[in-house]
Amino acid sequence: MHSLPYANYPPFISREQEEYVLSTIKDWSIQHGLTVRPSSSFVPGEVDKSGVLATTAPVTLFPSPFPESCFRQAHFLQTTYNELYAAISNDEVWIEEVMKGLIEVDDFIKNLWKVHQSVKEEGYVQQLSLGLFRSDYMLHAPSSHELPSLRQVEFNTISSSFGGLSALVTSLHTHLLTFTDPSAHLAYPNHPLFEAREAGSANSNSQALPSDATINVPPVNDAVQVLQTGLSAAHEAYASSKSEPKLPLCILFLVQDHERNIFDQLALSSTLKFPVFRLLTSQILSHTSIDPDNHLRPLVYTPPSSPATRFEVTTIYLRALYAPAEYTSAESWSARLHLERSAAIKCPGVLSQLAGCKKVQQVLTSISPDHVRRFLPNASQSTLSSLRSTFAPQYDLNPNSEGLAIALDESRAANHVLKPQREGGGNNIYRTAIPGFLKSLPSKEHYRSYILMELIHPPAEAKNTVLRSDGTVISGNVISELGVFGACLWRQGERTGDGATRSGFEILHNEGGGYLMRTKGKDSDEGGVAAGFSCLDSVLLY
Amino acid sequence: MHSLPYANYPPFISREQEEYVLSTIKDWSIQHGLTVRPSSSFVPGEVDKSGVLATTAPVTLFPSPFPESCFRQAHFLQTTYNELYAAISNDEVWIEEVMKGLIEVDDFIKNLWKVHQSVKEEGYVQQLSLGLFRSDYMLHAPSSHELPSLRQVEFNTISSSFGGLSALVTSLHTHLLTFTDPSAHLAYPNHPLFEAREAGSANSNSQALPSDATINVPPVNDAVQVLQTGLSAAHEAYASSKSEPKLPLCILFLVQDHERNIFDQLALSSTLKFPVFRLLTSQILSHTSIDPDNHLRPLVYTPPSSPATRFEVTTIYLRALYAPAEYTSAESWSARLHLERSAAIKCPGVLSQLAGCKKVQQVLTSISPDHVRRFLPNASQSTLSSLRSTFAPQYDLNPNSEGLAIALDESRAANHVLKPQREGGGNNIYRTAIPGFLKSLPSKEHYRSYILMELIHPPAEAKNTVLRSDGTVISGNVISELGVFGACLWRQGERTGDGATRSGFEILHNEGGGYLMRTKGKDSDEGGVAAGFSCLDSVLLY
Repeated sequence: MHSLPYANYPPFISREQEEYVLSTIKDWSIQHGLTVRPSSSFVPGEVDKSGVLATTAPVTLFPSPFPESCFRQAHFLQTTYNELYAAISNDEVWIEEVMKGLIEVDDFIKNLWKVHQSVKEEGYVQQLSLGLFRSDYMLHAPSSHELPSLRQVEFNTISSSFGGLSALVTSLHTHLLTFTDPSAHLAYPNHPLFEAREAGSANSNSQALPSDATINVPPVNDAVQVLQTGLSAAHEAYASSKSEPKLPLCILFLVQDHERNIFDQLALSSTLKFPVFRLLTSQILSHTSIDPDNHLRPLVYTPPSSPATRFEVTTIYLRALYAPAEYTSAESWSARLHLERSAAIKCPGVLSQLAGCKKVQQVLTSISPDHVRRFLPNASQSTLSSLRSTFAPQYDLNPNSEGLAIALDESRAANHVLKPQREGGGNNIYRTAIPGFLKSLPSKEHYRSYILMELIHPPAEAKNTVLRSDGTVISGNVISELGVFGACLWRQGERTGDGATRSGFEILHNEGGGYLMRTKGKDSDEGGVAAGFSCLDSVLLY
Repeated sequence: MHSLPYANYPPFISREQEEYVLSTIKDWSIQHGLTVRPSSSFVPGEVDKSGVLATTAPVTLFPSPFPESCFRQAHFLQTTYNELYAAISNDEVWIEEVMKGLIEVDDFIKNLWKVHQSVKEEGYVQQLSLGLFRSDYMLHAPSSHELPSLRQVEFNTISSSFGGLSALVTSLHTHLLTFTDPSAHLAYPNHPLFEAREAGSANSNSQALPSDATINVPPVNDAVQVLQTGLSAAHEAYASSKSEPKLPLCILFLVQDHERNIFDQLALSSTLKFPVFRLLTSQILSHTSIDPDNHLRPLVYTPPSSPATRFEVTTIYLRALYAPAEYTSAESWSARLHLERSAAIKCPGVLSQLAGCKKVQQVLTSISPDHVRRFLPNASQSTLSSLRSTFAPQYDLNPNSEGLAIALDESRAANHVLKPQREGGGNNIYRTAIPGFLKSLPSKEHYRSYILMELIHPPAEAKNTVLRSDGTVISGNVISELGVFGACLWRQGERTGDGATRSGFEILHNEGGGYLMRTKGKDSDEGGVAAGFSCLDSVLLY
């Protein structure tokens, strides 16, 4: 019988300690770039006309407890998950089969698919694909006495964010726990969770502490290295310029206008050992070009401040174009097609983006046919079991299906969440609102755009205090999500005659590591950190 | 005949290049902590109630040209200047003689002197003193064809700021000059000043560039290391706790409430290898104590967030208490006395602070008696000549003196500035305003509070563009000041019988290096960067 540490955590701190923690966070975050641009609801545009202000990223005052076994499992599984989604991205036949129903009813999915079809028709000139992934989990803890288990919330194949800032939060919490030394208790009083764990517990960060360490600190967060190593692997695999004459090589970070989360992106780009430029989605067609006479289709970037200078793009990293709302016109889709048909390595390509749909996640839970086994022919039975143990029960809403029966029955729906296929939070329907919502849809055709997932029950007694970006401080019950980052570079296989298999599919780089702990108030069922509902956190293993 | 590079500098840049430079500065500065807290005139207090916002520090868009010979001379002289002011601080008899007149008319000087006298009476328990100095110079360029010479504006013995942020500006300008490589011209077009200087020109930063460097970048800025090494030298020289039982050791940074320039201070404190705490001047008496039963008088600091924890202060670094306005009550002076009589090494002690008065600078220009020679018995003649060459002609306003004659004559005053004795900018009287100002003083007794200095004529054609902290961009003619940092730890000598000499005076650590380039619009005769009138800059040697 294991007693979970949530009921008595975090420890009570005095007003003076809270003041110390808050002022440390406010100063440390600005000094170290753990920052975001302020929202217009906090700082009106007329105050900061030229956009010079920044504020601390939303963070928890305390790191959150997390079971070591679950943390290790999530890290152990990452390279297998990377391989799974690389293999899915490699199988357009399977994706089309899974997506067919959606392509018919969802314009966004349809347009993505059309981009792929169009490039396929012309012929892809780049066989390499890069995935910078993040697999997100919650703890499922139906009982307060059993150790929680890991349940996957979603697998992000595009614009997996917060690797940069998350690593900084780990450093911030470590600083709060260890300055000047643990016994000084400047920030926090004693708590069993802060005490060093027995030797032999595989705390991967033990090497980061002095040998006489007497304190439990968050595990080292390698997110930046893992993501940067992935980008470097792609950049190097691109090899050399395909232009005549040859051009210098660069990477592009494709970003949104008015990005508040820019410092997360800069944490990745600014220390790479080759040129990286930021490109707004609105500037794709004006600042990049493909010479129609070069059948290799290198993507050429011209920096607006130096029109005579040209770079060839090895890798285009999308921190944008993941949500339907970003495609405001036909030109947006032309721009996406333009990138997809270029020789640049896409992170991700359109097929990888489609592989991240909730529908795929749901179909993978099937045992018969056993898709996971097929995509991971070399994985051991125990690895597959571990992977499958992270799947939450989930269903499609086909006519006469089990899923539809649950979704339309208020009492059975009460333990479920209805999710649209698309990336990005904010659109989930919860519990007893599900039947009414489904009935309000214009037709049953639209049911295909959703999947139904059994609710995950995170530790009910988890509490924390958060500092929001506008400076307000809120304490209360919280829900946390752990994301583990992965980087995978693969070569797409060639289709064989029957189109069902591919030869030549090859994984060139596969690494997992680094984490994002995201904590939100329990009242809000939804929350992306960037939207201001939730906060960046780190973990204390127990 | 040397043609100065100011007339054609900075080069014209396109709107797109300026946009690139500005957006790079805005993002780079936040990511790297080149920041200040916004002023209340920029961000009203009601917008940012809890103080989470930061903004970019005011910076120039271009590094400013500076003659290499002058730059080298300033660096070469720093250890000699350090020794000079250490020796002055060690000679209370000389200081009293020089200050006598001021002590009578200036309450601030009088109170500082009283602090010294009071501790002297009780007996100093700490013979070590630390100086973190900055010697400020302007270029004197009466002709646009002769190489300018170096003229000292002032020597700062207390709260010499901007070492932390200044080093970051050097990095920022280097980034703008070198990303992605010089030939890309993303930020700046070609300019002769940006081209690599001939091999053999002693550009100290050449080792920081790739061997095929084709560009002139600002010299490496070691300010943080020089200041930190000084603090470390003091901390280590303190040796061990004087408390019973022994306490852990720390350094205190004494700071002002609502310090906007906190990130400059954190750049020094946050990477020191021992505990550093920030202490507000208003908390000196509540958070530090001296056990009346311990004749060694160790200064004990209790962090408010952990009342059971005690640290012994090895070194107290004053980034406050330099200006009269900070002493708001008798308690302020009690607090200053409390620090001065403690065993902590003061940076600076009261005598060093007094040594920084403009009056001392003026008296040092005297040839007969030759004070400089007396204070620097071991300096070579050439070093002394070089040092003296940086002195601007300056005068006291004694009755019937040459100085007074100049000051009261409007045409002769027109080439002079009248400076009060005290630290901190904003109080100088310029040119033809001098005679009227003097006549407006309540009595001629007050003349003693001022010294008259011949105006320095900086390069008339110098121009730059600055980004202020509120985001506004201003271009125009500018004046720059170069400060070189120094760190000096010494042991005060024991007075011999006649009080005129001391034995045992010993310099334990003496280093110079790192620089602050401060550039302001030519219209404003005054300017401290923190006050928002002037900007942080770096140098390009020519």
